[in-house]
Amino acid sequence: MKRVEYPAPLKQLVAQLKRMPGIGPRSAERIALWMVSARNARPGEIAAAIASMSETVRPCPQCGFFTTEPLCEICADEARESELLCVVEEATDILPLERTGAFRGRYHALGGRISPLDHVGPDDLRIDALVERVRKEHPTEVILALGSDVEGEATANYLAGLLREFPVKLTRIAQGLPAGGGLEHADELTLSRALSGRVKV
Amino acid sequence: MKRVEYPAPLKQLVAQLKRMPGIGPRSAERIALWMVSARNARPGEIAAAIASMSETVRPCPQCGFFTTEPLCEICADEARESELLCVVEEATDILPLERTGAFRGRYHALGGRISPLDHVGPDDLRIDALVERVRKEHPTEVILALGSDVEGEATANYLAGLLREFPVKLTRIAQGLPAGGGLEHADELTLSRALSGRVKV
Repeated sequence: MKRVEYPAPLKQLVAQLKRMPGIGPRSAERIALWMVSARNARPGEIAAAIASMSETVRPCPQCGFFTTEPLCEICADEARESELLCVVEEATDILPLERTGAFRGRYHALGGRISPLDHVGPDDLRIDALVERVRKEHPTEVILALGSDVEGEATANYLAGLLREFPVKLTRIAQGLPAGGGLEHADELTLSRALSGRVKV
Repeated sequence: MKRVEYPAPLKQLVAQLKRMPGIGPRSAERIALWMVSARNARPGEIAAAIASMSETVRPCPQCGFFTTEPLCEICADEARESELLCVVEEATDILPLERTGAFRGRYHALGGRISPLDHVGPDDLRIDALVERVRKEHPTEVILALGSDVEGEATANYLAGLLREFPVKLTRIAQGLPAGGGLEHADELTLSRALSGRVKV
């Protein structure tokens, strides 16, 4: 007897949903079955939202944040301090920093970090554009808000070498204990960085 | 200073993704950001798969399984035993039963179960259609493969009352220990049902 399967369009949908981050085969099937059988699923609305986002939202040509306009909300905001430029790896790092309310400058997303193992070199990132911005916008400080892993360190070192020729203060965000974390939960590397980054009270 | 947010189409996408089962606010944002920024996301393909599924896949008018044809693969299969009719709550219960390979009859999905608390009564389910099928197809056995919870029991009892007037054997799938489960993991109700459903060895 022939093995019964779901109709082809349903199987193709499961395959597509499975590509999304954090969605395994079981979740993909569950979502697809919900779309085909739940009374209030209205899958057309979901498809339309994806299509509309994908047609209208673009990276800001200046900083890399998401926008539907020629420049993003942050770059277009005249009230921003143009003396401060914060470099992040991904455009998705910008909103978490914004939510702190602790920064009122502009951003520059590199689109990744230098990682030879993943075949990502300096030319694959928006590093030339960063140097160009520093040259033209004359920030007084460039803050490197990169990850505290090996690739983040390597990228920070590479950028430091490039930006040394400009009259700009170069800083990195602090590493140390995460908020609310006791010493017993911190690993050795975090503790050693927290020690060497100690500040006077 | 105005609070920076994602562009409206991106926020609308997050809201739509959040409606999917098992997807919380964090996962929805993660998926939306992946769609807008990952190189290989190709969100258009996902939107197209949803639209194509939603336009072509329909419930089989006879059994309720999913199909793109006038009748589903199972109902259209002449080799199926028409003497056996298996009643399930949801169309999504059919494929798990098929995968056992233990059943070669046809199915009937009710589209839910009787649940006064959720305002689901007999008229909200495909029960009239079931009675009509029993009248016309003359199955020799109707197997109730409903859930073993209160609503499943209530639905089984209701169907038993309706189908009593037909010359058909009415059975329910067995309740007892799940495969691979020791007695120490089984709750009292499962054990009591396993005891009362004991079979001669």
